Amino acid sequence: MAKEINSIGVLTSGGDAPGMNAAIRAVVRAGNHYGKRVFGIYEGYQGLIENQILELNARSVKGILNRGGTILKSSRSEEFKTKEGRKRAYENLQAHGIDALVLIGGNGTFTGGMYFSEEFDFPLMGLPGTIDNDLAGTDFTIGFDTACNVVIECVDRIRDTAESHNRLFLVEVMGRDSGFIGLRAGVASGAVDVIFPEEENPMIDLFAELERGASNNKTNRIILVSEGNKMGSIQEIAAAVKERYPQWESKITILGHLQRGGSPTCTDRVLASRLGVAAIESLLDGRRGEAIGIVNNQLAYMPFEEAIRSKAKLDMELNRILKILAS
Amino acid sequence: MAKEINSIGVLTSGGDAPGMNAAIRAVVRAGNHYGKRVFGIYEGYQGLIENQILELNARSVKGILNRGGTILKSSRSEEFKTKEGRKRAYENLQAHGIDALVLIGGNGTFTGGMYFSEEFDFPLMGLPGTIDNDLAGTDFTIGFDTACNVVIECVDRIRDTAESHNRLFLVEVMGRDSGFIGLRAGVASGAVDVIFPEEENPMIDLFAELERGASNNKTNRIILVSEGNKMGSIQEIAAAVKERYPQWESKITILGHLQRGGSPTCTDRVLASRLGVAAIESLLDGRRGEAIGIVNNQLAYMPFEEAIRSKAKLDMELNRILKILAS
Amino acid sequence: MAKEINSIGVLTSGGDAPGMNAAIRAVVRAGNHYGKRVFGIYEGYQGLIENQILELNARSVKGILNRGGTILKSSRSEEFKTKEGRKRAYENLQAHGIDALVLIGGNGTFTGGMYFSEEFDFPLMGLPGTIDNDLAGTDFTIGFDTACNVVIECVDRIRDTAESHNRLFLVEVMGRDSGFIGLRAGVASGAVDVIFPEEENPMIDLFAELERGASNNKTNRIILVSEGNKMGSIQEIAAAVKERYPQWESKITILGHLQRGGSPTCTDRVLASRLGVAAIESLLDGRRGEAIGIVNNQLAYMPFEEAIRSKAKLDMELNRILKILAS
Amino acid sequence: MAKEINSIGVLTSGGDAPGMNAAIRAVVRAGNHYGKRVFGIYEGYQGLIENQILELNARSVKGILNRGGTILKSSRSEEFKTKEGRKRAYENLQAHGIDALVLIGGNGTFTGGMYFSEEFDFPLMGLPGTIDNDLAGTDFTIGFDTACNVVIECVDRIRDTAESHNRLFLVEVMGRDSGFIGLRAGVASGAVDVIFPEEENPMIDLFAELERGASNNKTNRIILVSEGNKMGSIQEIAAAVKERYPQWESKITILGHLQRGGSPTCTDRVLASRLGVAAIESLLDGRRGEAIGIVNNQLAYMPFEEAIRSKAKLDMELNRILKILAS
Repeated sequence: MAKEINSIGVLTSGGDAPGMNAAIRAVVRAGNHYGKRVFGIYEGYQGLIENQILELNARSVKGILNRGGTILKSSRSEEFKTKEGRKRAYENLQAHGIDALVLIGGNGTFTGGMYFSEEFDFPLMGLPGTIDNDLAGTDFTIGFDTACNVVIECVDRIRDTAESHNRLFLVEVMGRDSGFIGLRAGVASGAVDVIFPEEENPMIDLFAELERGASNNKTNRIILVSEGNKMGSIQEIAAAVKERYPQWESKITILGHLQRGGSPTCTDRVLASRLGVAAIESLLDGRRGEAIGIVNNQLAYMPFEEAIRSKAKLDMELNRILKILAS
Repeated sequence: MAKEINSIGVLTSGGDAPGMNAAIRAVVRAGNHYGKRVFGIYEGYQGLIENQILELNARSVKGILNRGGTILKSSRSEEFKTKEGRKRAYENLQAHGIDALVLIGGNGTFTGGMYFSEEFDFPLMGLPGTIDNDLAGTDFTIGFDTACNVVIECVDRIRDTAESHNRLFLVEVMGRDSGFIGLRAGVASGAVDVIFPEEENPMIDLFAELERGASNNKTNRIILVSEGNKMGSIQEIAAAVKERYPQWESKITILGHLQRGGSPTCTDRVLASRLGVAAIESLLDGRRGEAIGIVNNQLAYMPFEEAIRSKAKLDMELNRILKILAS
Repeated sequence: MAKEINSIGVLTSGGDAPGMNAAIRAVVRAGNHYGKRVFGIYEGYQGLIENQILELNARSVKGILNRGGTILKSSRSEEFKTKEGRKRAYENLQAHGIDALVLIGGNGTFTGGMYFSEEFDFPLMGLPGTIDNDLAGTDFTIGFDTACNVVIECVDRIRDTAESHNRLFLVEVMGRDSGFIGLRAGVASGAVDVIFPEEENPMIDLFAELERGASNNKTNRIILVSEGNKMGSIQEIAAAVKERYPQWESKITILGHLQRGGSPTCTDRVLASRLGVAAIESLLDGRRGEAIGIVNNQLAYMPFEEAIRSKAKLDMELNRILKILAS
Repeated sequence: MAKEINSIGVLTSGGDAPGMNAAIRAVVRAGNHYGKRVFGIYEGYQGLIENQILELNARSVKGILNRGGTILKSSRSEEFKTKEGRKRAYENLQAHGIDALVLIGGNGTFTGGMYFSEEFDFPLMGLPGTIDNDLAGTDFTIGFDTACNVVIECVDRIRDTAESHNRLFLVEVMGRDSGFIGLRAGVASGAVDVIFPEEENPMIDLFAELERGASNNKTNRIILVSEGNKMGSIQEIAAAVKERYPQWESKITILGHLQRGGSPTCTDRVLASRLGVAAIESLLDGRRGEAIGIVNNQLAYMPFEEAIRSKAKLDMELNRILKILAS
């Protein structure tokens, strides 16, 4: 029989995402609700190794529901990739009497958790926290909805400027490996094209669009460019356009870390709250070593191993919709 | 065999909702994409009776994707409830050569459409446009996500004020028949209680919460109050609290039509865009007399009759989450 | 010769206002910049009496520049109005070695400061922190610009709703004694009328506007209503309209504490930062017992006595502009 | 005696700025208020040459008060720099019976207006519309306050991300010739340094700040970079930092046209409304060939020639404040 859980640790790791604080709050309050102590581990796995651990209670997480970032900080730890690092982490957990961990992060976070769990038979559950939405086992990750809303607000503002003809607004959005933010925000902001990592020949669509633009004249056009696209940097794309269509002037906006920040949307706060409660309840129900998500509006559990191996699939239907609407 | 469709009308009816413009844009552009003409009918069914009909094209719907309200206006029409009214509406459609209609609205809109469709064997499809989320056949209605985000932004601002002890902030939100906005925004804004229409004895939870508040002292508390709750007006609730707990001071905010307005969120724009395209494609595929929604991220179709009769079910799990987190 | 100042306290008192945190941050960092210690006094004068005093440094005020409310909390203290209360306050300051105080608040705050300064010959300077803008000695108070922007954002959202004719949107805004928020936000949000405290017969304009509205038909109209107007509550105004013009339907929004909250605007942050630095520099320059403001973009100093006695004058030119533009 | 004015044209020219629509609305409604006809000239001077002129009325400018951009579009016209171009423009005005013009724009706009006014003795008044605030004769230009608020909202979001140490966030803001946006937004967003065009050796401050950062360790730092600074592009600045301090990692955000867009702030709407009314009233009072501004909260008039020759002076006091607060 599983050992009873009395104290639970929570950490955030990897790139931060809006809604992580809402998840931390939910973990702490749900933990207390069930009579458990909850400890915050600061600066992710590195902080676990360095013993940066503080007990949290309802009051510690007051007023964080609507704050971007993560009060627990985050980090990427090379040391946790070593056996020695993980051993020190385990000893710190032992010293605090922590029986279980809730991890909030992405694939790297879950990978670290999987090794740790195997080595020390330690109860862990993971919550998907990343703006990129590139995790399997959940329809949406914590932070994705906020990031998309930040992008469309920015593009709305760019669109207001009305001055000139034959002007391209190229807007770089996050997405090293996938076009989730690009495509969703593209549909929602009326972009005429999105250049995203999954495309083999991204310039074909763009040039076709510009040809079409040339015929109906006189319009500003918005193009979203995911970081990880196969064509190259946004400056290179601007140069390629200039070379082929000298009459088109490109204006560049790079949103950068803007997309990570800001107050989480309603959807991200609700998602994070549900998952935070589920993390505690699933640990108390005896679940171990799984990523928790919401699929078709129901809680869903996927073993870390499978979550890491699988890849979230981009819905190409959105690209079809975008093309139909980009008149 | 069904008559070929060459011209399609679109109208918005009932209370307006953010995202209706995004839906209109999608209907117009998808219609044009498939080589069909699209006509905008202004002021809902009443405008149909009064022949307020104009052809729309890609340019007419430029720049509306991010605007609240509806460029087609909306209305509630008594005349359309009569046979004579509907007959005049039909004649106007005939005169313009309009073969099919896309209706954007709620239950009343679909009811009118159902009668009209039966009487004149006229191709119609309906899109769920209401901030209340109280329609069957779809997980979310167009406008709901925006309304919830407006509410939480407002509550975030209220929460910043830090001055006093034993202070209740009562915030009235929309929802004549259901607590969708109240509960979702309540979880997302850290309300300690939501008073919503489905509750039989709404004051029990509130008084329990205040008792608990009395013991841990010194905090401002946020309570959301849905319009249609069984306890009465927000002023009456404030009075009932005052009578029982004289030490609690209530501050009232009434959000009112604020919740209908503003730029739609990413989720509402994507939902409206997908549904607008689906409205055209389903009509061209021969579908008739159905409300289109998205269920578990897939398009879903429900005959008007069933959509009207059914009721969207409030997820009481959210109330459970709210109580756990309201420490 | 004045005693050298080595330690400075800072407190916020009265109703809180966005930008108070920016002012606290500036006081702390400017104090440290000049080699002085700075102490935060929590919960205003009451906290001073109850010895709620903590030293602050650059790190304590990190990340508060953009937060609404006040990290020092605020209160209204009856006890500070008594000689005994002020004596205890003085003793606490002595015990901490605090040589001077920066007060952030409104008229009540300055009044308390004036008595205190006279009784104990204690160096004090005051910063105008209130959303109401009703203080003499400064063009704008800290928080006013943010409050006005919150109001116009809300009205923008209300305006989007497009459904009906002969509809009045009555929006209650803050202003118990003056129409500063009402008039400024009224011009900026396209209100057709503002009902504000300085008006003797507020309904004359409103009825005239409705007569005019009756003739050009079919429009929604926005009316801002300051709390302290001479006509009565917003519900009473709605009733008076209903009685005289039964065809006009009134929709009520009460913004309430929403107006106090939210992230301060650029103008409020810059104002607060300049005044916070000036508070420290003026104390070190030997100034005492004055409210600091910005008049015509220059720092201005006014003795508390005069600041309390004078009244900020509402610029009625804004009302003239509003009437011209309310077509 | 001056010819009576019966019809007034209005145009926007140069880079667009939030609040231009509010100014257009005020010109139109104030014109109508005084019984004059008002004509909108589309696409600036180029549209004047090409006779793109339409009469506007109260209804034409309904709903634009809160919209970014300019409904009249804008352009930069080479042709208007020629005598022939201006002659065609004059003929078009004659043909429409337009007696006077209100110009909304920057220095280039006023220069064109000055030539035009001299050649044809044509009544003109100018309103300062540019986000850059680099015009003489007014404390603030229409659009500047909004641009600054957009920048600080973006920086607030960037600041939320909490992940790493020794990280510089470099944010490029507008300002080809001056640091108005950079400095004001820098103070308001807690930047530790602003690199702006008026600085001769911009890297000195930055390196000093980084040295200081090195000692107190572990913080993210925000640096605003005005486009027109003497150090070079934001990428070059990042490279120079990297070379000297390899441990500092720079993250780049380029706000670009984002800063031109979005709904104008309360301050910009009030400024634009006051100036729009003043443009009409000053023309009817017989004023000619002047830029209208607001100085110390009073209307101020400056002949175009002087407005063009003078340069708005950057308030270096803001840089001093920024340094004190950048702890």
